[in-house]
Amino acid sequence: MKVEVISIGDELLIGQTVNTNASWMGMALRDIGANIDYGTVIRDEKSMMRDAFDLAFSRVDVVLVTGGLGPTKDDITKKVLCEYFGTELVQNDEVLAHIRGFFESRGRKMLDVNILQAHVPSNATVLHNNFGTAPGMWFEHEGKILVSMPGVPYEMKSIMTDHVIPRLEDRFELDKLYYRTLQIQGMGESYIAELIKDIEEELRTDELSLAYLPSPGLVRLRVSAKDTSVNREKIQGYISRIEDLLPKHAFGYEDDSLPEVIGKLLRDRGETVTTIESCTGGAVAAAITSIPGASDYFHGATVTYSDAIKSGVVGVESKTLKQFGAVSQQTVEEMAHGGRTLMNATYGVALSGIAGPEGGTDEKPVGTVWIAIATSEGVFSKKCLFEKDRSRNIRRSVLTALNLLRCEILGLNVEKS
Amino acid sequence: MKVEVISIGDELLIGQTVNTNASWMGMALRDIGANIDYGTVIRDEKSMMRDAFDLAFSRVDVVLVTGGLGPTKDDITKKVLCEYFGTELVQNDEVLAHIRGFFESRGRKMLDVNILQAHVPSNATVLHNNFGTAPGMWFEHEGKILVSMPGVPYEMKSIMTDHVIPRLEDRFELDKLYYRTLQIQGMGESYIAELIKDIEEELRTDELSLAYLPSPGLVRLRVSAKDTSVNREKIQGYISRIEDLLPKHAFGYEDDSLPEVIGKLLRDRGETVTTIESCTGGAVAAAITSIPGASDYFHGATVTYSDAIKSGVVGVESKTLKQFGAVSQQTVEEMAHGGRTLMNATYGVALSGIAGPEGGTDEKPVGTVWIAIATSEGVFSKKCLFEKDRSRNIRRSVLTALNLLRCEILGLNVEKS
Repeated sequence: MKVEVISIGDELLIGQTVNTNASWMGMALRDIGANIDYGTVIRDEKSMMRDAFDLAFSRVDVVLVTGGLGPTKDDITKKVLCEYFGTELVQNDEVLAHIRGFFESRGRKMLDVNILQAHVPSNATVLHNNFGTAPGMWFEHEGKILVSMPGVPYEMKSIMTDHVIPRLEDRFELDKLYYRTLQIQGMGESYIAELIKDIEEELRTDELSLAYLPSPGLVRLRVSAKDTSVNREKIQGYISRIEDLLPKHAFGYEDDSLPEVIGKLLRDRGETVTTIESCTGGAVAAAITSIPGASDYFHGATVTYSDAIKSGVVGVESKTLKQFGAVSQQTVEEMAHGGRTLMNATYGVALSGIAGPEGGTDEKPVGTVWIAIATSEGVFSKKCLFEKDRSRNIRRSVLTALNLLRCEILGLNVEKS
Repeated sequence: MKVEVISIGDELLIGQTVNTNASWMGMALRDIGANIDYGTVIRDEKSMMRDAFDLAFSRVDVVLVTGGLGPTKDDITKKVLCEYFGTELVQNDEVLAHIRGFFESRGRKMLDVNILQAHVPSNATVLHNNFGTAPGMWFEHEGKILVSMPGVPYEMKSIMTDHVIPRLEDRFELDKLYYRTLQIQGMGESYIAELIKDIEEELRTDELSLAYLPSPGLVRLRVSAKDTSVNREKIQGYISRIEDLLPKHAFGYEDDSLPEVIGKLLRDRGETVTTIESCTGGAVAAAITSIPGASDYFHGATVTYSDAIKSGVVGVESKTLKQFGAVSQQTVEEMAHGGRTLMNATYGVALSGIAGPEGGTDEKPVGTVWIAIATSEGVFSKKCLFEKDRSRNIRRSVLTALNLLRCEILGLNVEKS
């Protein structure tokens, strides 16, 4: 099965939007053992679209098209497809009912342009769009397939997952790939590579693939091979061996996130957490509560940005702030204790640091972040030195704090004050 | 000048790397009045590369190629280009000296494969790479141009900025594009289209372009045309007219974000804000503090997730919670007042809602969010009905709360209780 992805939209070519759709589709197809052979990006322009469809049909079996299906005038994909396949638009009552329901459930008025979204080419199979008003459309053309989907990422993803992927799996014999991913926090790519270099050598001799997929504060380590029972067992074995080498850093598998992992641990134990944030400004609490059902283990939190609030709301001693400053072990430990008491939680996670770009000194440069975790037993604290970039510092602080909380729950943080 | 960008690399097609290079080049070219006409992504494969070069030369004047120039065996771009242009590799002493210096300055050993990077096709103009060992290469071919650059983003950017952009500007007469973007919150694409349909008609008659660029909770509206003083004035005029139609929704221009806009307003007025969040769990505070210098107008905040914390920390009356529930106008208004008093802020922004996916009832379905803004004068509150998806509900709640705060600061919220 050869595949081409055609992404339509001026915004992609002028750099206003990054083409994350194409990379998501690449991953989704790889999971079912298929690959994208060509990626094409063109403008919302009739002749370009026709040429791109001709070229794609000349070289691949499946053409996945995104973009240009919105209700506004600059979205012309449906019209061009209709002409290209020599067919005409007919109203689809099911789609119309869905669109009507979409607006009703939101208490919003349906407009004429939205009714037009229920008009679909007569020879297309409609692919239901759970999250929007423009349906996906599946065309069969001389033994080949073209699928048109909206460019809005979550709409495209839902149509791909619910309809396109299952249909492609039915239609083609694909060599499924098996892979396992280990999620690692707080250890850089090259450190991991050094630590596991013997395992990596062995793994490659076994004809398995290993990929490092880094993002700020995280590395995903993916081991993959053709899906056979022998390979499954081997891959599982390697993942376990790597995991055993880094218990403080390997926190999960596949798409696990730290907030999810922590949520499960806390719920299982009937424990709760609160946060007391300075430099992260609420981002740790927001990460914890991004998980459905977080209210089981999270009841409240504080953002203590100024010294006055650190003292007034969570009871940091003025003399501590005066003597050691806001970004210090002493202050962050008092924040953790004070916030934990105020919110009556099992764990109090406090952060205080210099996110930047301003505010650094020689002694405490931008990127210095103190993190403390208080329990009824005492407090564990750690100093981190991140980078210059504010948003990356905030992101890394959030992940580090969550991972330290994970280690605390699991009893892996040993030195306490 | 017609341009095609060819991005070479398996990692782009399997979704391991997002093609940010192509979007960066799109922006860089737009700034000099050029557009990418075609974006193509292919594998590191000789026949695919040759076909892609043929196709590109048949339809554009300038072909910008990235990727496949590393020292490893799977990087074959240079070899394929050499064959394609019927030329041979010769050692370039200047490049060799640069590579030698590159390794020396880093205290690393130069390998044989690195010496090979100093071999360049004899008919190519070498473009110096300040940040890496693989030089850029500029080929002239039957009146057309092909430039090959490394795929490492900062190396590509430096070669583009230092060499490619200035050379293209010298070579072609470019019609610089002028554009203005209006940022709009809380009004969907189709509503905007309906509201401005006469303006849009007029604008298209004037041969200007209008694009709707939506993301959850936001729409960017972009008007563009060839950069002439007449068009600049026209575009500015249209942007003002559209802005005047939606004062409660149009919050900024170009890349403005709501946290930035609010930050400026508060700083100018010497005012402060605090947040009291339930369903957003700290995400509003995190958005406000994502901006450098937020400590000027943000001193602290609370996340009041449970009823006990709503009562205990910000003083919501137990009888209010009992009678109206946590997701109600009465509760959210008391949260706003209580949090504002606790943090001694000019504005108290409170949110309480059902983010989902669980917890909805017939009366208060998932997506119901109450937002209140308290000042010394009283409180403004609004009920929103969003969607089913938790993360989108949180994101839209954050943006809506920030925009209501903007309206409050500007005196646009009229009905107060």
